[in-house]
Amino acid sequence: MTTNNLNKKNESKKNQNNRKTKKNTDKRSFFPRKPKVPIQPYKIIPLGGLKEIGKNCTIIESGNDILVIDCGFAFPEYEMFGIDIVIPDFTYLKENIKKIRGVIITHGHEDHIGGIPYFIKEINVPIYASPLAMGLIDHKLDEHNLNPERHVIRPKDIFKVGKFEVEAIQINHSIADALAFSIKFPGGHVVHTGDFKVDYSPLDGKVIDLNRLSRLGDEGVDLLLCDSTNATKEGYTPSEAVVRQSIDDIFNKTDKRIIIATFSSNVHRIKYFIESSMKHQRRIAISGRSMENVLSLAKNLGYLDNIPDSIFVNIADIRSIEDKNLTIITTGSQGEPMSALTRMANNNHRSVRLKKNDMVVFSSSPIPGNEKVISQVINKLYEKNVEVVLASMIDVHVSGHASSEELKLIHTLIRPRFFIPAHGEYRHLIEHAEIAHSLGQPKDNIFILSNGDALNVTGKTATKVPGFTSGEGVMVDGYGIGDVGNIVLKDRKTLSQSGLITIAVAIDASTGSLMSRPELKTRGFVYVQEHQDLINEAINIVYNTLGYCMENKIKDEASLSKAIRDDVKSFIYKQTKRNPMILPLILYI
Amino acid sequence: MTTNNLNKKNESKKNQNNRKTKKNTDKRSFFPRKPKVPIQPYKIIPLGGLKEIGKNCTIIESGNDILVIDCGFAFPEYEMFGIDIVIPDFTYLKENIKKIRGVIITHGHEDHIGGIPYFIKEINVPIYASPLAMGLIDHKLDEHNLNPERHVIRPKDIFKVGKFEVEAIQINHSIADALAFSIKFPGGHVVHTGDFKVDYSPLDGKVIDLNRLSRLGDEGVDLLLCDSTNATKEGYTPSEAVVRQSIDDIFNKTDKRIIIATFSSNVHRIKYFIESSMKHQRRIAISGRSMENVLSLAKNLGYLDNIPDSIFVNIADIRSIEDKNLTIITTGSQGEPMSALTRMANNNHRSVRLKKNDMVVFSSSPIPGNEKVISQVINKLYEKNVEVVLASMIDVHVSGHASSEELKLIHTLIRPRFFIPAHGEYRHLIEHAEIAHSLGQPKDNIFILSNGDALNVTGKTATKVPGFTSGEGVMVDGYGIGDVGNIVLKDRKTLSQSGLITIAVAIDASTGSLMSRPELKTRGFVYVQEHQDLINEAINIVYNTLGYCMENKIKDEASLSKAIRDDVKSFIYKQTKRNPMILPLILYI
Repeated sequence: MTTNNLNKKNESKKNQNNRKTKKNTDKRSFFPRKPKVPIQPYKIIPLGGLKEIGKNCTIIESGNDILVIDCGFAFPEYEMFGIDIVIPDFTYLKENIKKIRGVIITHGHEDHIGGIPYFIKEINVPIYASPLAMGLIDHKLDEHNLNPERHVIRPKDIFKVGKFEVEAIQINHSIADALAFSIKFPGGHVVHTGDFKVDYSPLDGKVIDLNRLSRLGDEGVDLLLCDSTNATKEGYTPSEAVVRQSIDDIFNKTDKRIIIATFSSNVHRIKYFIESSMKHQRRIAISGRSMENVLSLAKNLGYLDNIPDSIFVNIADIRSIEDKNLTIITTGSQGEPMSALTRMANNNHRSVRLKKNDMVVFSSSPIPGNEKVISQVINKLYEKNVEVVLASMIDVHVSGHASSEELKLIHTLIRPRFFIPAHGEYRHLIEHAEIAHSLGQPKDNIFILSNGDALNVTGKTATKVPGFTSGEGVMVDGYGIGDVGNIVLKDRKTLSQSGLITIAVAIDASTGSLMSRPELKTRGFVYVQEHQDLINEAINIVYNTLGYCMENKIKDEASLSKAIRDDVKSFIYKQTKRNPMILPLILYI
Repeated sequence: MTTNNLNKKNESKKNQNNRKTKKNTDKRSFFPRKPKVPIQPYKIIPLGGLKEIGKNCTIIESGNDILVIDCGFAFPEYEMFGIDIVIPDFTYLKENIKKIRGVIITHGHEDHIGGIPYFIKEINVPIYASPLAMGLIDHKLDEHNLNPERHVIRPKDIFKVGKFEVEAIQINHSIADALAFSIKFPGGHVVHTGDFKVDYSPLDGKVIDLNRLSRLGDEGVDLLLCDSTNATKEGYTPSEAVVRQSIDDIFNKTDKRIIIATFSSNVHRIKYFIESSMKHQRRIAISGRSMENVLSLAKNLGYLDNIPDSIFVNIADIRSIEDKNLTIITTGSQGEPMSALTRMANNNHRSVRLKKNDMVVFSSSPIPGNEKVISQVINKLYEKNVEVVLASMIDVHVSGHASSEELKLIHTLIRPRFFIPAHGEYRHLIEHAEIAHSLGQPKDNIFILSNGDALNVTGKTATKVPGFTSGEGVMVDGYGIGDVGNIVLKDRKTLSQSGLITIAVAIDASTGSLMSRPELKTRGFVYVQEHQDLINEAINIVYNTLGYCMENKIKDEASLSKAIRDDVKSFIYKQTKRNPMILPLILYI
């Protein structure tokens, strides 16, 4: 593995020229009023992350060079039974594999890095990511036994990936080390915000680099891709400092054992939980594999340098510690069935028994779709007389995404020629487009794309090419990548609704006569021991069907299967109003 | 069918005596300080609706008389694959069938009436319900071809059900004709609020009868069962009048075609949509079966008397009507897959094509668990450039349940000796208990029950009997009531995750040798045409397994099945990291 820090080329002085001067002098000014060489066209192709929250992946293609920005996965949607994750379709990239110069990563959330192992298996190119994101990526690559070239990047770093000159820019988000990118290349200057918010008082003190974004605007940006997640939210997203205040209040007031569930990747927030615990003579136990992994990573990166090791206690050794001297930081804020908090709620946790003198703080808000499982966990906590603190009650969580006023600030600083609302469901993209338009961005210069569309940009013109490549997700199930299609999913749904009846019959290959009693088994249909009559009647139906077939000299597999399926199906529906899958197997002896 | 209105015994004058006087004169004073006869004990047994939202059903048992209050169903929970609905377990009622005098219904929501057909099939007793609730019940009973005795009741009606003297009391809720009950019987006076809120300006003008509740408090109530749904919400639930204002604003401002999705049972709100449409020269089309049913019922009950028939237009005939002259009122506010609004969003609606000049108003809030499907519908509306108005944006919906300040009002008026928080998840019950306690209710007199627990009340003492009867829900799947148990559900889950592989083999009964090529089929596993090698290898495994078995003289069905299952399972897992169900069928020739 090659992990090297790129040289920082701090160009801030050079760029402090005002726009007018620069236009005449800066060789990286891409749209001179009278171009002397033909303008080089380029393409933006989103492979994921548009009209959805998840599997972010965007391509910039300029001539013989392709740059990939982010490579995430999405969690399976409703009724994607048995699917582990969904990744972007890399077909177009595989077809153009020789052009691909690298992948740059905005931050380490799964919807931005989760697809990397699947990508690297097919396309081995260098990865550029910030320290925490790279740590998380390393972990994934190790699990998949992969070892691509890797480069750690930091805010203000400027580096070349093929023909693309990429500059990393400090932004704020709910994970440490999140970046925006300015990407310059002959014929284009693209700014991609990544996921961001504007936080004037982030816990790590690293405020979004508005000055640099402003100067980029001065230099001239021809295309902006910008986070749309909270475009429908009015006003400003509160600062992480709000969480600090709420946490202080909790620690000041309670002597209970405090159990905080939050996202493991929010390292700075977790660090604050630890610091606040220290101030209140509490030791800290960590529970949940991803929480342990991220904290060990954060420690290696030096993000916990002022935290003495002695403050931590192994989760297995907490029994001797008084409630008022203990904080447990845990996974499970989304009600994940196997997570540490859910196991605590279900009395299945190896080391933590919840009790009356416990307080559980959800430093999180429900990701849409998780409301019901979270609610189940909360009710179980109440059953144990645990005090529950939710973000809907006091501000123990804030979003990591910019609300509409912050988006207005970014648009006003960047002033792009073209705008693609990124990272959001359809309604978020539309609302974000409205915001840009309300600031004077012409509607013709705003492009709502779908995954797989391309935007062709040539100088001052941009054209959308719908369905340029496949924007469908690829479903991953176990080792299988893309081998579960709609037919398989439909079968899984049918099986989940009413189970199946499978019927084996042995047929004399020459006469078509039955060689033995048909064997019938059901699964997921009814509890057979209580419905033996129904099963016996179904077997009689099979006898009758086969008798009829023999009389009529029907003995090919397809016809026999269909006859059995049809007759048993209609009998079962009439008796039970259910439609289990009927699966005959014909053995010819 | 016997539908008769009971005589109203308006006892308000009699009850205007103050408490002191009444205590000495009123023969229905149940707790004289020195009882002259032994105090008669009674039981409260919730069969559903506690620690859950759904299938409300509560029993009062006094001597040889049982009164049932409400009989609802619940929607299936997470991972109850294929289950249609869940109803209360009527075992205890069936065992005591001779004692049951009737069912009284607080209101017509499914979680209060949906279990009635299943109940009446087992226990044919009279039903007492308000006009709208009874209309909805009639519909259900007709569908199930049932014809029990029925009595329509109205606020202030006092009627006997066995030994129970029941008084219907006007309350406010998100459905017309919702009632609370005062239930008096030798040894007890129970008040059950049903689902309610305090609305000083309801759309039908029928304000909750606080005066009567106050007088009941004066008379002395020994047990209160009270709605807990919004106990965790601070302050007051807004009046329906708020919705009126928002709807007026919308109608005043827009010339678009307006499509309003709401709960069909909120007749008064729907009536207001119609009236507002009339005022704005709009005609009304109705879409969705339940919406049509409820409105036809409301019309028969005279609730739409000032609405001329001519204002309605058949949904099939809307094409000729200008957008600004049309309102469509539709089902589908919860994103239900087959509902009218979802069909519109999916371009599957027979008569409505959504377009740019449409506005869809969700006069509803998401029922927990439905967030994701609703979100999908909303995004599809945005894709069609439809303007979407949500309750989170302007007040086009208010809850039908009392928030904490309203609950305080009811407790203060009723002043019960004992209190059972009803109708809510565990956390709602706990918070409601806290509210009661904060008003002075001793903790020992508050009982958090589970479904199936009993509360034994004898005069001034009450004792909880945990697990008195079954409080488990009974799952309904097609015609099957309770025949899908946990084993079947577990199989459905396994099948949904990885599908199945079924393998039929024909064996010589005497020698144990294989009589034909094993037949193997998969469903919901992989797309077989692309994985023929895997299937062939699996068949080879079966050959090997059976060869080994024959050599070792293993030929009984259980051993052969297990051997095949184990070997194929481990092969498949190794190859695919999936765990499909393996289902061998052995035929002996």
